[in-house]
Amino acid sequence: MPLLPSLRTALPTATIWDAAELASRDPGFDARNFGASALVRPRDVTGVAALVRFCAEHGVSLVAQGGRTGLAGGAATSADQVICDLGGLTQIEEIDPFARVGIVQAGTTLGALQEAAAAHGLEPGIDLAARGSATIGGMVSTNAGGIMAFRNGTMRHRVLGLEAVLPDGRVFSDLTRVLKTSAGYDLKHLFIGAEGTLGIVTRVAVRLDPVAGASATALVGVPDAAGAQRIVRHFLGSTSARLTAAEILWRNFARLMQRALNYAPGQLPLDAPCLLVLGLGADTMETARGMLEDGLAAIWEEAGILDGLVASSDAQAAAMWRLREETVEIEHAHPMAPSFDVSVPGGALDAYVARIEAGLKALDAAYAPYVYGHLADGNLHISINCDGPVSHERHEAIEGVLYEGLREAGGSFSAEHGVGLEKREAYERHADPVKRDLAKAIKELIDPGNVMNPGKVVG
Amino acid sequence: MPLLPSLRTALPTATIWDAAELASRDPGFDARNFGASALVRPRDVTGVAALVRFCAEHGVSLVAQGGRTGLAGGAATSADQVICDLGGLTQIEEIDPFARVGIVQAGTTLGALQEAAAAHGLEPGIDLAARGSATIGGMVSTNAGGIMAFRNGTMRHRVLGLEAVLPDGRVFSDLTRVLKTSAGYDLKHLFIGAEGTLGIVTRVAVRLDPVAGASATALVGVPDAAGAQRIVRHFLGSTSARLTAAEILWRNFARLMQRALNYAPGQLPLDAPCLLVLGLGADTMETARGMLEDGLAAIWEEAGILDGLVASSDAQAAAMWRLREETVEIEHAHPMAPSFDVSVPGGALDAYVARIEAGLKALDAAYAPYVYGHLADGNLHISINCDGPVSHERHEAIEGVLYEGLREAGGSFSAEHGVGLEKREAYERHADPVKRDLAKAIKELIDPGNVMNPGKVVG
Ligand SMILES: Cc1cc2nc3c(=O)[nH]c(=O)nc-3n(C[C@H](O)[C@H](O)[C@H](O)COP(=O)(O)OP(=O)(O)OC[C@H]3O[C@@H](n4cnc5c(N)ncnc54)[C@H](O)[C@@H]3O)c2cc1C
Ligand SMILES: Cc1cc2nc3c(=O)[nH]c(=O)nc-3n(C[C@H](O)[C@H](O)[C@H](O)COP(=O)(O)OP(=O)(O)OC[C@H]3O[C@@H](n4cnc5c(N)ncnc54)[C@H](O)[C@@H]3O)c2cc1C
Repeated sequence: MPLLPSLRTALPTATIWDAAELASRDPGFDARNFGASALVRPRDVTGVAALVRFCAEHGVSLVAQGGRTGLAGGAATSADQVICDLGGLTQIEEIDPFARVGIVQAGTTLGALQEAAAAHGLEPGIDLAARGSATIGGMVSTNAGGIMAFRNGTMRHRVLGLEAVLPDGRVFSDLTRVLKTSAGYDLKHLFIGAEGTLGIVTRVAVRLDPVAGASATALVGVPDAAGAQRIVRHFLGSTSARLTAAEILWRNFARLMQRALNYAPGQLPLDAPCLLVLGLGADTMETARGMLEDGLAAIWEEAGILDGLVASSDAQAAAMWRLREETVEIEHAHPMAPSFDVSVPGGALDAYVARIEAGLKALDAAYAPYVYGHLADGNLHISINCDGPVSHERHEAIEGVLYEGLREAGGSFSAEHGVGLEKREAYERHADPVKRDLAKAIKELIDPGNVMNPGKVVG
Repeated sequence: MPLLPSLRTALPTATIWDAAELASRDPGFDARNFGASALVRPRDVTGVAALVRFCAEHGVSLVAQGGRTGLAGGAATSADQVICDLGGLTQIEEIDPFARVGIVQAGTTLGALQEAAAAHGLEPGIDLAARGSATIGGMVSTNAGGIMAFRNGTMRHRVLGLEAVLPDGRVFSDLTRVLKTSAGYDLKHLFIGAEGTLGIVTRVAVRLDPVAGASATALVGVPDAAGAQRIVRHFLGSTSARLTAAEILWRNFARLMQRALNYAPGQLPLDAPCLLVLGLGADTMETARGMLEDGLAAIWEEAGILDGLVASSDAQAAAMWRLREETVEIEHAHPMAPSFDVSVPGGALDAYVARIEAGLKALDAAYAPYVYGHLADGNLHISINCDGPVSHERHEAIEGVLYEGLREAGGSFSAEHGVGLEKREAYERHADPVKRDLAKAIKELIDPGNVMNPGKVVG
């Protein structure tokens, strides 16, 4: 029986696109996202469950897609697959200002939740540049991180409860709205970070926190990450201000951005080996700026600060942030540059960067990586300054340099983007073998028919 | 073959107690803890693994014990079982002030970790009255909460990595020291809150945070929980001070404590229907006290505050805290009083308390529960004012009153103490059936021989 007509019969209320229609649409961040034979957009959780049962019965595999901003190829599809698009489940069902929780359908964008929460002086406590498209379901499924994770945790720590459709069509409903629940195995954590391989997340209870009255921004030049960390520790140690961001940019990346964004020489102090973009929240902007200035002055010598500027206007703050956030400029300079996302334990950052710079140079004398990231949690993004894709062998060699010894040191070869397709091999090579065994067994237990996003994460 | 001699042969370096020796020792909070035929205290993870393999081979089941302060009967043992005591694994292996992480063996007490971290101006961000005995391994296994969870999360949110011995003796090693890891299913969360039914936790990487310079305490009388929540929201909304505690005591409990602790009439303002113990951290004690006073004044009318006192000395603050923490007085007044531990979503607290008071009165006109707990995360502890144990039927009826509709409202019948033995029936009755199915399947997958703490949590 041809797939499309039976899909249409089985799911009369869902929006359905065939391969031709998919080919004419924007596949999002990854060109492979729309390789499927059909996209189905159910209207509610019942529709998702019906689609899952249909696929299970017909032996067709299913790939969930939210905002299609994922960076690990987790949403890539092939012609024998069907997409479950969450774009029909976008309701913000409730913002409870007392319990400080938002109940949203999985297709809700982060931006939409941020806006709805802001109306109550609250925020989801997680932020990333793709906020306009990335969905809560996708963020749960990749355990997204972003710039506030060092304070508020990753998406995993923001989820109070969730609902998911299992591979057999049953609904796992664990919609607690409370932080404390020790009521048996907390199985929602299996679905968080599973990248759609264990079920489809349909509804999430997200923890919300009060927004700071105002947030001031500074750009600071330091000799190394250790200096930047001294600054961070200084502000974290103070109870009178709330550090809201601490992003680091190594010189090579900062120079690229400065050129790409056409910043005038001297517009911002950008000469130091490392730059730190700091955000500090306080009850008023004046207090926040004053505290940033005082704090930087107090730690100036100890951190070896070379240069520093507290933004005196929103426009200046935005210019500082663009330097960090417009990372698409790497793509413009080096299309499909090999890119990585690692976690390095706090004390080891400078040594790590020195080691990979040397290791990459040994592979190719022209390699000089762009390194930037979330300083306070040790999450570095690394792009190689060459066009991609590189050969499989070369990619492996680069991974060898970047990932070697990382797990043993307590870091991670995948910090916040997930494993998806991109890091399947790295996962086999660098994850703990006992953990991999257990993960595989759990995948087989929950999805014996391999209906959900086969080939991703656990294979 | 008799068990003890073969245990001694198989584990020559471990300390081993037989049933007679166990009978002469303090079993901790639960009299049933030392019902086993032997206690084995290995010296390291290799010893734990050897013990696990021994038990698996001999078909003997194994119950992990840390501080034996658990309140859900999770560590109770019977004559056919062996105890794996973690008292030999008490090393604090490392405090890394830069990465803000502590690596500890599972038998380390919370108090010992707090002390070691304090030497670096850090704290594990979790605190509970049993700090002198409760171990990190036990706290991980029960997903302990305590008074700072509303800010820092429960134990689950403080664990960066862990190592555990699986039921087949293999070591699951996931000792990341970083916050961000999206590197496949995050299986450490299976062991967190599993109460020793899936493996034995041997080592933990605990997140640490900078300690506030000083913390001021206040006792405030309000008409109801809603008033107390307005106060909490006010302080949470400020970035210039750090709310460190918000504990609520309903009148009935406060009166019991006042009598038990022999507080003079008028020593503390204790007349209101609800009392709130507030902690506020700031850089100095003077600032903290000033902020508490100003904040209370600002919210006085809106919250309907009836009475309030900011502690002017450490002794006064301690007196306020004893009121909340010396809960053993309930036990003195009503030996084995039926006690419960629920999470109620923020907006529903007053209605919940009113409902259960009425429901309990309908069961027995003399019932007037003691209610107190962690206001800011909705975690209430409830003890009935009668001696225990009550009949099975009566216990069930009380649970019916307390747990009815709680899950549907987004709460939890077990907030921070776990399921253990005490809440096995409640678990069967009140947990989502799909979740229970999945939990059982995972238990069978990981522990097919039912070696690890059988009969607890999942049965
Ligand atoms: C400019 C830019 C900046 C970014 N910055 C950050 C950053 O700072 N931090 C960070 O962590 N990430 C960042 N990302 C990556 C990306 O935004 C996140 O991974 C995000 O969580 C993906 O959400 P999505 O809705 O787009 O998911 P998709 O791309 O649609 O899907 C991602 C994965 O999740 C699965 N999935 C999606 N929805 C569901 C569902 N409802 N149920 C089950 N599985 C599902 C998919 O199958 C796929 O495996 C950035 C991306 C871009 C383009
Ligand atoms: C006065 C008092 C106040 C308390 N206050 C709080 C509070 O505010 N918040 C709160 O959450 N709890 C509180 N508790 C409960 C108790 O302290 C916690 O449950 C604590 O986590 C138990 O730790 P433990 O080391 O004593 O564990 P134990 O009692 O020894 O064991 C508890 C459970 O964990 C398992 N276990 C222990 N160690 C391991 C291990 N290494 N690996 C695998 N499984 C293991 C046991 O088998 C058992 O199921 C309080 C208890 C008391 C007596």
